[in-house]
Amino acid sequence: MKFGIVAFPSKKLQDLANTYRKRYDSHYSKVTPHITLKEGFEVNEADIKVITEKLATIAKKHAPLNIHASRVSSFFPNTNVIYFKIEPTEQLSNLHNELHAEINIGKPRHVFVPHITIAQDISAAEHDDIFGQLRMVGVNEKDTIDRIHLLYQLEDGSWTTYETYKLTGDE
Amino acid sequence: MKFGIVAFPSKKLQDLANTYRKRYDSHYSKVTPHITLKEGFEVNEADIKVITEKLATIAKKHAPLNIHASRVSSFFPNTNVIYFKIEPTEQLSNLHNELHAEINIGKPRHVFVPHITIAQDISAAEHDDIFGQLRMVGVNEKDTIDRIHLLYQLEDGSWTTYETYKLTGDE
Repeated sequence: MKFGIVAFPSKKLQDLANTYRKRYDSHYSKVTPHITLKEGFEVNEADIKVITEKLATIAKKHAPLNIHASRVSSFFPNTNVIYFKIEPTEQLSNLHNELHAEINIGKPRHVFVPHITIAQDISAAEHDDIFGQLRMVGVNEKDTIDRIHLLYQLEDGSWTTYETYKLTGDE
Repeated sequence: MKFGIVAFPSKKLQDLANTYRKRYDSHYSKVTPHITLKEGFEVNEADIKVITEKLATIAKKHAPLNIHASRVSSFFPNTNVIYFKIEPTEQLSNLHNELHAEINIGKPRHVFVPHITIAQDISAAEHDDIFGQLRMVGVNEKDTIDRIHLLYQLEDGSWTTYETYKLTGDE
């Protein structure tokens, strides 16, 4: 099965992201707005238990994440993905690095740029148009995320939560 | 915020339900296939902690749920909802009853008929047509569900998992 690890921001920030996603994001109906901490990776049924134990251990070490969605940005020209930029912090990169070190399945496909996607699978012309508009509107939301989610993907591309892990540590 | 409590069946059973839901269920994109244990109820932010503590206690008492999706059934003429019937068990009704007794917010709106919805918001004619077909195809899947999920609803109607609780008891 394909698993992924994400942090869901507050309902308020998810609702805000969805006002854009419902129009511009092809994955809108597959998962609610999130920060990806580890992209999709294949796990055999037999190995799930080990991974959930590792995640429980990691979550106990890390403190709730203080995040700041500071502006609307884009991965153009790499991809036509528009997102809420989450200001990089040591806390976020420590968690990201530890997840990848401990769950050593699938290397990070990109440098870790914490973000909440609000538009994807749009044409270059749409991208320029939408990005121009949304960059002006911008975003400025601070939030604390006190848990991370292990998700698995169904055949239709949608994601179900397998387990939640509260961030209860000091780091 | 509006919360709900569900049990997600195995990926296999979710995938099967989705083959119908994507065509016939208006809620297809809002949540993955599930058995509702407690329908949506409003909770003040301040009361969430109490509810999560109660859920953790309840989950520790109950054993993983052995379910049997035994046939395709319908709530017609009450509503045009078609579903995988889950055979009622003492285990399921005990869990349902305890959730409603302990989290005393919102009475059960219906008698508890455990099910996985596969079609809703369809016309009477569509209902007759689809139900006629799906009843013939039927379903016969057994499954063990070892956790329950507390979900909350976003403004667009979609649901995000708040927390998962493993069923680790003996009952």
